[in-house]
Amino acid sequence: MSKVSPNRLGIKQILGALESGDLRATDVTQACLDRIMARNAEVNAFVSFDVRQAMTAAAELGDFNVKRPLFGVPFAVKDVIDTKAYPTAYGSPIYAGHFPERDASCVTLAQEHGGVLLGKVATCEFATQTPSNTRNPLDTRRTPGGSSSGSAAAVSDYMAPFAFGTQTTGSTIRPAVYCGVVGFKPSYGLINNAGLKPLSPEQDTISLFTRDVEDAATVLYGLHGVRCPELPRIVPRIGVLRSSQWDHARPETVEALESLTDRMATAGASISELTMPAELEAMIEIQGRISAYEARHSLAYERLYQHDRLSSRLQGRLAQEQHTTADEYFAFKQRARQARRLAAQWFDDVDVLLYPASEGEPELGLMETGSPRYGGLWTLLHLPCVSQPIAVGPAGMPLGAQFIGAYGDDLRVLAAAEFMRAHVQYVHKLPA
Amino acid sequence: MSKVSPNRLGIKQILGALESGDLRATDVTQACLDRIMARNAEVNAFVSFDVRQAMTAAAELGDFNVKRPLFGVPFAVKDVIDTKAYPTAYGSPIYAGHFPERDASCVTLAQEHGGVLLGKVATCEFATQTPSNTRNPLDTRRTPGGSSSGSAAAVSDYMAPFAFGTQTTGSTIRPAVYCGVVGFKPSYGLINNAGLKPLSPEQDTISLFTRDVEDAATVLYGLHGVRCPELPRIVPRIGVLRSSQWDHARPETVEALESLTDRMATAGASISELTMPAELEAMIEIQGRISAYEARHSLAYERLYQHDRLSSRLQGRLAQEQHTTADEYFAFKQRARQARRLAAQWFDDVDVLLYPASEGEPELGLMETGSPRYGGLWTLLHLPCVSQPIAVGPAGMPLGAQFIGAYGDDLRVLAAAEFMRAHVQYVHKLPA
Repeated sequence: MSKVSPNRLGIKQILGALESGDLRATDVTQACLDRIMARNAEVNAFVSFDVRQAMTAAAELGDFNVKRPLFGVPFAVKDVIDTKAYPTAYGSPIYAGHFPERDASCVTLAQEHGGVLLGKVATCEFATQTPSNTRNPLDTRRTPGGSSSGSAAAVSDYMAPFAFGTQTTGSTIRPAVYCGVVGFKPSYGLINNAGLKPLSPEQDTISLFTRDVEDAATVLYGLHGVRCPELPRIVPRIGVLRSSQWDHARPETVEALESLTDRMATAGASISELTMPAELEAMIEIQGRISAYEARHSLAYERLYQHDRLSSRLQGRLAQEQHTTADEYFAFKQRARQARRLAAQWFDDVDVLLYPASEGEPELGLMETGSPRYGGLWTLLHLPCVSQPIAVGPAGMPLGAQFIGAYGDDLRVLAAAEFMRAHVQYVHKLPA
Repeated sequence: MSKVSPNRLGIKQILGALESGDLRATDVTQACLDRIMARNAEVNAFVSFDVRQAMTAAAELGDFNVKRPLFGVPFAVKDVIDTKAYPTAYGSPIYAGHFPERDASCVTLAQEHGGVLLGKVATCEFATQTPSNTRNPLDTRRTPGGSSSGSAAAVSDYMAPFAFGTQTTGSTIRPAVYCGVVGFKPSYGLINNAGLKPLSPEQDTISLFTRDVEDAATVLYGLHGVRCPELPRIVPRIGVLRSSQWDHARPETVEALESLTDRMATAGASISELTMPAELEAMIEIQGRISAYEARHSLAYERLYQHDRLSSRLQGRLAQEQHTTADEYFAFKQRARQARRLAAQWFDDVDVLLYPASEGEPELGLMETGSPRYGGLWTLLHLPCVSQPIAVGPAGMPLGAQFIGAYGDDLRVLAAAEFMRAHVQYVHKLPA
């Protein structure tokens, strides 16, 4: 690995190089910071970073306790997640220069287990759809997706080996694919969301962006203080889940999914065709209504007292669902519970569901972040999802897919995603 | 109602008196503030209040828009819930004098719909078990229970007609009964918890303390912007749920529950005896393990960087579960899901479950807040619970019970609790 700049290493490689003494923690952090300084003016992934703080943190790790599960691994944090030492603006001018009084749980846990905080990365306004000015590193004329725009771009651009993002509708699955990296939304609750600015509290899920599937598993376990077990080598039972949402996928996306499915079948995976039950089809719309209703409540303070400083787009979103009654909302919440029960049945027969992750390649322009449609239902259902690029589209940009697993069965869906990875037609390459 | 001081009125009465013009909003708020000033030095329910701010808020309501669902209703907020205008210390010296940059969702929603914020009420340290110095208004030598100590005491003592509390294990159900008032833990998620300091995020539930069952319904609906429908008059199908936890109930509690059950049966309620399934018995212990594990994560910042300023009791609690592995924890979370599914089946046959709410009368002394044991399982299961005093024990203090309902069926469990209320042997009386 002597020729590869340390910022291009994956997490497993970093841990190995630090343990063997081939690299020091400061080498890795310095290389990430160098990359940020070289590229951030163009990519706008980071909204704040601090060379001195990050280098001090890396230096203070020393070389004791190198067995810590995230020892010396630099990371970036989406700016809807609180950090005490870096301003936390939630993507809104209301909170420009705001310093929370403490770090979020995930930030502290990553540090407790050896990680090095590099800084904060851009988010859409309060993790909704009003974009940041982040660019897609693969083509800076294009959107990186949202709302975890900076997380996806930073990891794609080799500024950080992992970044925390979030997903409430489709804020992880899609930007990961747009930027050519892995997006992992764990089962709801497995990464503690204390210190996350709430949007829809029973959906908001802290997620991980990495360049490899194994690295996502390493971080998930690392946050719980343990070295990740080797991902089991599995040949998964895959359910290709058809729904009305496939109608919105571009022909090249459908083709890439079919071609991928054929290759996985050839490799021995059992493939079954499943159809979305009507009640779950109905939940796709209800997920949007729950999200809009809860955003009105979660952002009540900003809606009432800082309305003029919200984007007109967010103002419009917060005006939605204002005529929904309490009883309607309670009934939505009940149906969401029942839907979780219904969805659990799939996993009696399959290990994972295969589903689109994005309609197609990321669009030109930075005013839209693409449709979050392929994420919402899975966030509502609390199920773990792993998305990744699977092919290159007509414009040379990634097309993607996701696997969805049973609640709490995150290791299995990651293992299945590692199997998928062996069959994709995509290699992540960026010029130095 | 001319002879009753306005601070002793229930919410329905306040709304009626303001609508008819018998009272002005400032009269009600002033009466509550007068009571706080007269009694707080003894009871220590409020940790901060501000006469000028509260009276200004009441005066600014004017008399327009009197139809707002919480118009002119004063309220208090447990100090684990953020408020911008009042210090928010979470019951910990770490945050003494801390002013959050915004109000929690529930605070803003209550104000949006006409409520008047009186101030903050005491909490145990981070809503765990280290007590505040709040006293039980019914006997100031005794604990008010915890962790929502101030919420229960303020409502009991006629300082406020309602207060926000929280429940992660048993922090609402028990103190309500100890102080002789109604505790309502809604279905998880129905009151938005943005701005609550997390402890166990998938359990933390914002709750309500009132002196009447109907008032709890009025606030729940009021937070959603609507006047509450009349509580349906029901004669509920009641399942008396037996479990190992009954062994911890004092004889007088069991006797009071049996006597109450007899009276409700005589009034026409159908009573069935149910036994806790073994898997749900097992979840009682697992709820404690999940809570301790998640507290380690939620309070990671304080645990790592402010350890010396935590109570030794909380330090001990946070040291628990440190050897639980990620896989064990994930398995606990899966079992919690399955337990929710299992519990849903009860409500095919009964409207509500009857269960103890406290072991017995509140103890003498302020160093312990009593056992939270009767709350944890129901918080984990996300089910709505209403507790209330049902009789007076040998020391003259309240004994209590709770009804538990199906998820999202909060109106029904409240209606059942109103039915229970007609059959209790307790009248809330405090000297002027």
